[in-house]
Amino acid sequence: MSGTLITSAAGGVSLSGSNVTFVIIALVFALIALGFAAMFVQSVLKAGRGTENMQEIAGAVQEGASAYLFRQFKTLGIFVVVAVVLLFLLPVHETDNETWVKIGRSLFFVVGAVFSAFIGGAGMALATRANLRVAAAAGESGGREKAMGIAFRTGGVVGFLTVGLGLFGGALVVLIFKGDAPTVLEGFGFGAALLAMFMRVGGGIFTKAADVGADLVGKVEQGIPEDDPRNAATIADNVGDNVGDCAGMAADLFESYAVTLVAALILGQAAFGQDGLIFPLIVSTIGVVIAIIGVFITRLRPSDKNGLTAINRAFYISALISAVVVAVVSFVYLPSTFAGFNDDGIAADILDSGQDPRWVAVGAVVIGIVLAAAIQALTGYFTETNRRPVQDIGKSSQTGPATVVLAGISVGLESAVYSALVIGAGVFGAYLLGGTSLTLSLFAVALAGTGLLTTVGVIVAMDTFGPISDNAQGIAEMSGDVDEKGAQILTELDAVGNTTKAITKGIAIATAVLAATALFGSYTNTLATSLAEAGISPEAVGAEILGLLNISNPRNLVGLLVGAAVVFLFSGLAINAVSRSAGAVVMEVRRQFREFPGIMDRTQRPEYGRVVDICTRDAQRELVTPGLLAILAPIAVGFGLGAGALASYLAGAIGTGTLMAVFLSNSGGAWDNAKKLVEDGAFGGKGSDAHAATVIGDTVGDPFKDTAGPAINPLIKVMNLVSLLIAPAVVAWSIGTDANTPLRVTIALVAVAIVVAAVVWSKRKPISMGDDTPSASAGDNTPNERVSA
Amino acid sequence: MSGTLITSAAGGVSLSGSNVTFVIIALVFALIALGFAAMFVQSVLKAGRGTENMQEIAGAVQEGASAYLFRQFKTLGIFVVVAVVLLFLLPVHETDNETWVKIGRSLFFVVGAVFSAFIGGAGMALATRANLRVAAAAGESGGREKAMGIAFRTGGVVGFLTVGLGLFGGALVVLIFKGDAPTVLEGFGFGAALLAMFMRVGGGIFTKAADVGADLVGKVEQGIPEDDPRNAATIADNVGDNVGDCAGMAADLFESYAVTLVAALILGQAAFGQDGLIFPLIVSTIGVVIAIIGVFITRLRPSDKNGLTAINRAFYISALISAVVVAVVSFVYLPSTFAGFNDDGIAADILDSGQDPRWVAVGAVVIGIVLAAAIQALTGYFTETNRRPVQDIGKSSQTGPATVVLAGISVGLESAVYSALVIGAGVFGAYLLGGTSLTLSLFAVALAGTGLLTTVGVIVAMDTFGPISDNAQGIAEMSGDVDEKGAQILTELDAVGNTTKAITKGIAIATAVLAATALFGSYTNTLATSLAEAGISPEAVGAEILGLLNISNPRNLVGLLVGAAVVFLFSGLAINAVSRSAGAVVMEVRRQFREFPGIMDRTQRPEYGRVVDICTRDAQRELVTPGLLAILAPIAVGFGLGAGALASYLAGAIGTGTLMAVFLSNSGGAWDNAKKLVEDGAFGGKGSDAHAATVIGDTVGDPFKDTAGPAINPLIKVMNLVSLLIAPAVVAWSIGTDANTPLRVTIALVAVAIVVAAVVWSKRKPISMGDDTPSASAGDNTPNERVSA
Repeated sequence: MSGTLITSAAGGVSLSGSNVTFVIIALVFALIALGFAAMFVQSVLKAGRGTENMQEIAGAVQEGASAYLFRQFKTLGIFVVVAVVLLFLLPVHETDNETWVKIGRSLFFVVGAVFSAFIGGAGMALATRANLRVAAAAGESGGREKAMGIAFRTGGVVGFLTVGLGLFGGALVVLIFKGDAPTVLEGFGFGAALLAMFMRVGGGIFTKAADVGADLVGKVEQGIPEDDPRNAATIADNVGDNVGDCAGMAADLFESYAVTLVAALILGQAAFGQDGLIFPLIVSTIGVVIAIIGVFITRLRPSDKNGLTAINRAFYISALISAVVVAVVSFVYLPSTFAGFNDDGIAADILDSGQDPRWVAVGAVVIGIVLAAAIQALTGYFTETNRRPVQDIGKSSQTGPATVVLAGISVGLESAVYSALVIGAGVFGAYLLGGTSLTLSLFAVALAGTGLLTTVGVIVAMDTFGPISDNAQGIAEMSGDVDEKGAQILTELDAVGNTTKAITKGIAIATAVLAATALFGSYTNTLATSLAEAGISPEAVGAEILGLLNISNPRNLVGLLVGAAVVFLFSGLAINAVSRSAGAVVMEVRRQFREFPGIMDRTQRPEYGRVVDICTRDAQRELVTPGLLAILAPIAVGFGLGAGALASYLAGAIGTGTLMAVFLSNSGGAWDNAKKLVEDGAFGGKGSDAHAATVIGDTVGDPFKDTAGPAINPLIKVMNLVSLLIAPAVVAWSIGTDANTPLRVTIALVAVAIVVAAVVWSKRKPISMGDDTPSASAGDNTPNERVSA
Repeated sequence: MSGTLITSAAGGVSLSGSNVTFVIIALVFALIALGFAAMFVQSVLKAGRGTENMQEIAGAVQEGASAYLFRQFKTLGIFVVVAVVLLFLLPVHETDNETWVKIGRSLFFVVGAVFSAFIGGAGMALATRANLRVAAAAGESGGREKAMGIAFRTGGVVGFLTVGLGLFGGALVVLIFKGDAPTVLEGFGFGAALLAMFMRVGGGIFTKAADVGADLVGKVEQGIPEDDPRNAATIADNVGDNVGDCAGMAADLFESYAVTLVAALILGQAAFGQDGLIFPLIVSTIGVVIAIIGVFITRLRPSDKNGLTAINRAFYISALISAVVVAVVSFVYLPSTFAGFNDDGIAADILDSGQDPRWVAVGAVVIGIVLAAAIQALTGYFTETNRRPVQDIGKSSQTGPATVVLAGISVGLESAVYSALVIGAGVFGAYLLGGTSLTLSLFAVALAGTGLLTTVGVIVAMDTFGPISDNAQGIAEMSGDVDEKGAQILTELDAVGNTTKAITKGIAIATAVLAATALFGSYTNTLATSLAEAGISPEAVGAEILGLLNISNPRNLVGLLVGAAVVFLFSGLAINAVSRSAGAVVMEVRRQFREFPGIMDRTQRPEYGRVVDICTRDAQRELVTPGLLAILAPIAVGFGLGAGALASYLAGAIGTGTLMAVFLSNSGGAWDNAKKLVEDGAFGGKGSDAHAATVIGDTVGDPFKDTAGPAINPLIKVMNLVSLLIAPAVVAWSIGTDANTPLRVTIALVAVAIVVAAVVWSKRKPISMGDDTPSASAGDNTPNERVSA
């Protein structure tokens, strides 16, 4: 099977009547999900809004968050416009409707980007309103259930939007473009992934600049607690939770959903023609139903130890229902042999494989679901407070910060290995389902991705739960208007949120691997079509592609090395951006303590807005370089080193990216919980040296887990989709009659030059926190500074 | 060119008379190098041995180091015996002398291992003697030049041994085995790499356990300076410098040299038949001459700012001479077209390429030399005290340890990217020299490796210089017998040593990439032969191989992911091993301070030997798991997932490994020098909070730069050679008449089971430093503990 290639079935596929019906059913279910979202919004907004004091704080957070998002969308607008123009210029495969397909691709790129932005924005807007209501509910009678209910329903809205808009977009493209859908879907996925990546990076920089900056001055220098209203960075910190953990995450999970669906649709058509476009839509439609069920069954029972019990129960029940429904649908809808399919466009090697389509479908979906559950369990083991890894990090706090950092790093490295092996096992399992057919194997991998994402509704709801609880706690702390019982409830919800956040990051990266592996198949397919169009004879195309993709070719090894390097550079840039921006926050908070001596005794109010402005400005500036890197690096490799090197570039980025993403997320999560362990009284408790050591570990982990780590998932997808989009041009301009080496080399050099300029430019502003020596106390005004209070 | 494959020319090549002459010339030059080594040993040992006090300290270090090495060789003996047996059982390609080749392979495996061990052991034994003499010389008149001379000549001995024994081994195999040399050379390289990897890991764990343990109790808890004789871990710390930085490094550079030469010889024969065996030997013979010149011209001039100026001058002069000599030899010895070669065994695609052999040879060697110089410059930029990256880390010390750690990590990540890109550019440049011939491209890559290593003599001398200066300073400090001027000279030499150490690590990893890329060609070649032997028709072999090596196949992507994961696991295990062993050292030193209250006022002497014993024991125990992982992981992947997945496994390990190795080495080096920057008075100087922050950064960096980072180079080579060795069996047992799936799967499962058991076993002993709460002062004896002083 190793030598076979997937057949190309591009263009000319029309949908049969029954298939149109299926697509329309999918669209209807997508709209139902959106209806549920609207319903839940009403229900969340109906809840009580707490005291005036709380409303004022929440208002400030809302305002800061909206201001940030508005500015971010303005920045990203430029990228979107440029991308639309470039997309329109890039060649597509020969088809009857070339211009129409190009327009569709650009149009659906914008749709993907707008959906991504909308989900991020809407999720965040609702979250900033839900925070307040959760905090208020915690103080009422039956507060635990009420608060959890509001938080989870808010998450549910984001979940419904994700599955609803994702399915709606995918189904609409299929309905309109039929056989040309793959090219247009590439645009849709790219739009979603690009916006999500920017929102992850920008939001991640904002939230951690504010968080790290606030902690360095507040906790470390001034010795005041987290969320203390005397800290000028507090509002920015809370805004950050919303723009990073909420908006960024929501966009990221939407993108994961959309790209996975896109990959399944593209591979499906390559494998089966029109029928292949339908089955992924059916699985996703089932996912919509599961999402609705999952959100409804998540209820805290009096016997539940904590919120996580309820959430886990809902997740596992949803997963089980999902597997059963998919199995039933497969056995009802699918024939027992591939020969039983309408053979319009079905790949020959699939017909030869002798596999049973029903078992392939069920097997792939179940592998996806089991993979989600396995990652949930693994991530839990490495980041939960009561398991050995976090306990070991806690222990190492007794010999100081250096051993805490080392212990966290080695836990993170190891956990990344197990996650990677589990994901690898999932891919391999799905691959084996294809039997002798590589085409079928690739489709099975894509299908496993959609299977994994049948539970995405519950997963998104779980993840949104985290920042909402976190913010509710912040509002309660700052206002002082929530009683102790209420505060206790919010603390508990916050701890649950930490675990759910880590889990969803693991699942997101798993979708990246599955989608990327599947898209590889689509890349091969694109190469085949492009080579044929460049004049390579049909008999020679297979050998030519295999030669291009030969991993032992030094050119391809170089591509792989560059792909792995881009992940390192992207992570380094993101971490560095947080350091730089946090430095600016530190300077500003220090200045306020110095210039307004009344802050410490609460007679003066800090200027919160200034810190929000700084974070907003810095996040915009800092996201440009990693963003350009993600878009331009594959362009440079593709046009500079060729289509084969670009494939191994992607492989290198996927391999290293998966490990790096899990390493960064899990070590960060483990440090965070090791700190909580000590704060709960272990090894000397709060205020001990051990505590100080774990606070340092947690600070190191902050940009790991909330900036660099989670951004790698959309990074991989953006690079994958850019590669797919440029593949026809790369092949056309390097082989055959349209070969144009000067053009290719020029594009590559321009891409490299822009990236280099961006990297140099991003360093223009040095890390500034050291330029200004810390003032010993808030009242320490140096003579040459105006006290403007 | 992408689709072509290298032709197989295994077996049956005999050497012409003129070629035998060349091999004998190479052997003679190898012996001359060994003669120079003996001469230099005499010269070093003749130098003055200082005071009795100094001799006593040096004696303790010598004794500890020998005890460690003796015990390590005993442990490794078991691995060597097992490996010999397994090697003999593994099938080789069909040849007239199958048994003889198998015996040769096992025999030269032992030779490679013994050479590696001998160079490590001899280098270390001489270093432990030179330390004392350097310390003594620093106190004499003209001490600067004398001390530097002794240190550099000691390094020269190791350099001569490296080039001498490497060339001797390689030439001997060629002389004896002729056409079957490649298979035997695989054994030779594997022996060298395996021993070196164990010595790197074991030595790295020993040295950093002692160093970190000593610092945590001495500097942090007791507030006594480094190398203070009251610290029970001081001798162990100095022993560690010798077993890790000296023995481990010497073995590692020998292995780099041997494996690169082996790769060039194997590829050379595949490309050119017998002539291809000769040219790499000629380049290496030139390298011997260059090494001798390089060591002789390294002399401190009065005008030199410091030792680094002299060393850099020698390096650049050697590099230049080397390029010129290779160019002259190429233009004298080589014909102007490949058709002008004796065409016995020359690959067809080379003849078709139309390249000029003289320019290919010169180009490849010059690329190697330029690559060495570029890495030297890059590493210098990222780790030198007076450049911006280290200055930025220094600045970040003002906001505490967390920002120091983050800044170091982002500097390390970024520097890894640039090194990887430079190495990638080198590979790509050499690749382009092949024109349309992939076979020629691969040979050019291998030749670039030998070019890089023409300067290895000087490089090894540079690197050995580091630990010798470090130890000399330790002896001076502990004995108190060297005056202030002498101490100043030793401090200066030590600082130079830090930079040279970082540079050689960068160069070592570059050889890993070049050798690994070249060995990939040899892997393809092995697959071709094995497939033919398994009954695949000659016409089908090419397509079959390309199918196997198709990077877009999910099976291969899984292999790649596992390869990248192994690098993460190996690094995590190594860092974790240091944490665990350092914990044991901390406990022991604390115990001694507690039980012997006279230590602090110098009325009692600590039991230094106990700490040496602990480090020796722990290093042996801890090296087993990463060692087994390196050997068994490729076996599991090869037999479990097949020959194609094994190839992409290697590609993944090379890509991620290169970046990880440079990241770990450079961030560690940068932290070390940021600490020195603060110690020199910046940001508050010694004793300030900024200093404490950089000490934490340095401690985090210790296992990065001296344990995990440098061990990745031999790791990559061991995995590469294991893959080459098992490739015939993998193919034979999965394809054709000898296919035996149960056997394959059983081998894979047993390999996985052993690795899992080893990982679990290594965690049996928890990190223990936290089990014992730190005693507040040396005299703090808890009632239930016996004071045995």
